[in-house]
Amino acid sequence: MTRKPRPPVHHPDPVLVEATRGPLVESLHRGAVAVCDAAGEILAGWGDIERAVFPRSAVKPLQALPLIETGAAERFALSDQEIALACASHAGNALQVELVEKWLLRIGLTETDLECGPQIPSDADTARALLCADKAPSALHNNCSGKHCGMLTTARHLNEPTKGYVGADHPVQLRITAVLGEMTGTVPQHTPFGTDGCGIPTYALPLSGLATAMARLADPSRQGPTRRKAAARILAAMSAHPELIAGKGRLSTEVMRAVPSVMIKGGAEGVYTAILPGKGLGVAVKIDDGANRAAEVALLAVLRHLQAFTTEEEAALADHLQPILRNAAGQAIGVLRPAPDWLG
Amino acid sequence: MTRKPRPPVHHPDPVLVEATRGPLVESLHRGAVAVCDAAGEILAGWGDIERAVFPRSAVKPLQALPLIETGAAERFALSDQEIALACASHAGNALQVELVEKWLLRIGLTETDLECGPQIPSDADTARALLCADKAPSALHNNCSGKHCGMLTTARHLNEPTKGYVGADHPVQLRITAVLGEMTGTVPQHTPFGTDGCGIPTYALPLSGLATAMARLADPSRQGPTRRKAAARILAAMSAHPELIAGKGRLSTEVMRAVPSVMIKGGAEGVYTAILPGKGLGVAVKIDDGANRAAEVALLAVLRHLQAFTTEEEAALADHLQPILRNAAGQAIGVLRPAPDWLG
Repeated sequence: MTRKPRPPVHHPDPVLVEATRGPLVESLHRGAVAVCDAAGEILAGWGDIERAVFPRSAVKPLQALPLIETGAAERFALSDQEIALACASHAGNALQVELVEKWLLRIGLTETDLECGPQIPSDADTARALLCADKAPSALHNNCSGKHCGMLTTARHLNEPTKGYVGADHPVQLRITAVLGEMTGTVPQHTPFGTDGCGIPTYALPLSGLATAMARLADPSRQGPTRRKAAARILAAMSAHPELIAGKGRLSTEVMRAVPSVMIKGGAEGVYTAILPGKGLGVAVKIDDGANRAAEVALLAVLRHLQAFTTEEEAALADHLQPILRNAAGQAIGVLRPAPDWLG
Repeated sequence: MTRKPRPPVHHPDPVLVEATRGPLVESLHRGAVAVCDAAGEILAGWGDIERAVFPRSAVKPLQALPLIETGAAERFALSDQEIALACASHAGNALQVELVEKWLLRIGLTETDLECGPQIPSDADTARALLCADKAPSALHNNCSGKHCGMLTTARHLNEPTKGYVGADHPVQLRITAVLGEMTGTVPQHTPFGTDGCGIPTYALPLSGLATAMARLADPSRQGPTRRKAAARILAAMSAHPELIAGKGRLSTEVMRAVPSVMIKGGAEGVYTAILPGKGLGVAVKIDDGANRAAEVALLAVLRHLQAFTTEEEAALADHLQPILRNAAGQAIGVLRPAPDWLG
C-alpha cells in the first residue's frame, strides 16, 4: 500500500490536551494521532492523520537504519551507546558529547565535519558551565550530533564524500529517504521537504505512515532479514540506553526508564512517536500548533489508552500523565491533561 | 452594557497564524481577536470573542488605575518610571530591579514584602550574572515586581495590611476587580478566577470586554474626571518608558519604541492587548493554544489591518510582522506569518 500525504488543510482536528487554570480551561491543543500495525492497518485514529506532517526528530530511529544495513556499524564496531546516540535528541551533557567526539575520531573525523550547527545544550549543568566560562557551544552539543555522526559513518564506510552530507541529493540522504519510503509506505521523494533544525531535509509524511513505520520497527517480521536485524539492533540500543536518547528529566528518557516495553521519540513542533514491540504497534502524534508540552501529554494518554503500561508503570509516570502547572511562588495553579471528551 | 463571559467551549476559532517550513505550513495557531471602541461597540471580531479568557499580564495597565485613583501615586510622588513599572512585565534587568527596590524602600518596605515569588529574569545578562555567581533570583527579578510594588503602595497609602495583599479578598484586589468590571463592562466578581503566575487572582473576561477596557484607556472621555486623569497618566508613563514595560528585544518595548502612537501589553498563554489613543480603540488577542509567538504576530497583523502604522513604522517592524525562523546553523527555514485567508 502506498500512502499519499495531502497538503495541510485548516481542518479543525479534535482537542487532545487542555491546560487548566483554577476552574477553567486556559488553553487547548488540537492535534491528530494515528495507531497502526506493521501491515499499515489503522487501528485507531483521531484527527486528520493523512495530511503531510514534518516528523522532525521523531524519525531518528528510522534514519539510523542505513547505518546498520550498509554494514557501517559492523565495520566500525559501533557500540549500543553509539547506536542509541544515532537515534537521540540528546541533551549535550558531558557523557553524550564525549561519546560522539570519540566516535568521530574513530571514523577519522572531527567536530568540524559535523554540519548540524552549534546549539546550546539542554542539559542545564553543561549549558551553565559553557555560559559561565564564556564558551560558545559547539556542533557536538547539538542534540542531533549523534545522528550526524551516524550519517558520516555511513558515508565513510561507503567512501562517499563527507562534505555536504546534509544535502537532499547526497547519497546519505537518498538512502535515508528510500528507507523512510519503504517503512512508511509513502514516496517521500514525491513529497515536499523542508530543512530540519540540523540542516538535513525533513520530508512531510502522513501520520498514518509514520505510525506504520514505527510498527514495522516494533514488528519487523514481514521485512527482509537485513532490516529485521537492523530494527532489532536499534530497539535493543534504545532500550539499553534511555539516558542517551534525551537526558535526565526529559520525557523520552524518563518513560523508557520506567517502561522497558515501550520506546518513544519526540520531534520539534509537537511530534511524538512510539514503538510498542510487545503489541506490534506504532503510534504517531502531531499537535497542530507545535506545542511539545501537549505532544507529551497526548502521547502518554494514547499509550495508556492502548494499555501499554502496567499499574506500577502508570503510577511511576503520574507526573507526566497529568503534569501540574506551578507559578513563580510554587503554587499549583492548574494542570495539563488529556481533553475529557477525547479518550473518554 | 454588561457583558457576560461564557465558559470556554471547544469551538474551532479561525487560524490566525501559521509557522511554515520550506514549502509547507508546519504548525498553525487558532485564536480570537476583538477590536472595540470606548462605548463597548465591537468594530471587528474574529473567533469566539465572548468566551472567558484569563487576561494575565495584559491587564496590568488596568490594574494600575487604583494606584493613581486612590491618591497613592501622588502621596508617594511616584515617577513616570515607577508608574510604567507598575504596568510592566519587565525583564528583571539591573535598572528595573534597582528602581523597584528604591520604590519599595520609599514606602517603608523591602523585597521580603513582595508576594510574587522569585523568577529567573528574562534579561539574558542579568540571568547569566546570577547563574554564574551561584545566586538565586529574588522576587525583585519577578517580571511582576513593579505591579506588586504598586499594589503595596496603595495598601500603605490606605493603611491596609500589606501581608496577604495577593488574596482575592484583600482590599487591594477588590479595588482592582471593581475597576476591571467598570472598564470591561463585566462583573468579574461573578466570573471564575484562577491564580496568576505571580499569585494574584486573574479573572476570566471576554475578549470583547478586554478590548473595550483598552479602548476606555485610549479614549477615557466618557469616564469620570479621576479615571480620565489616571488613564492619561498611565498612557503617558507607558509611552515615555517603553524600555521599562518589557525589555530590550521584547515585542512590547520594540513596538512602543518604533510606534509612539500605540501601546501594547502582553500576557502569558497567548494574550495581547493594544491601546490606540489616536483612534480611540482597544484590541485584545487570545491564541487558543497559549503560544506567545502567535499572539505577537496576530496582534501586529491586526494593528496593520487597522492602519495603526505609518509606512516607515511598518518597515521598522518588518522582522516582527513576519519573523523569520532559523535553524541551529542559522539557515532561514520558514516564517511565522498571519494566515493568508484571515485578513486577506
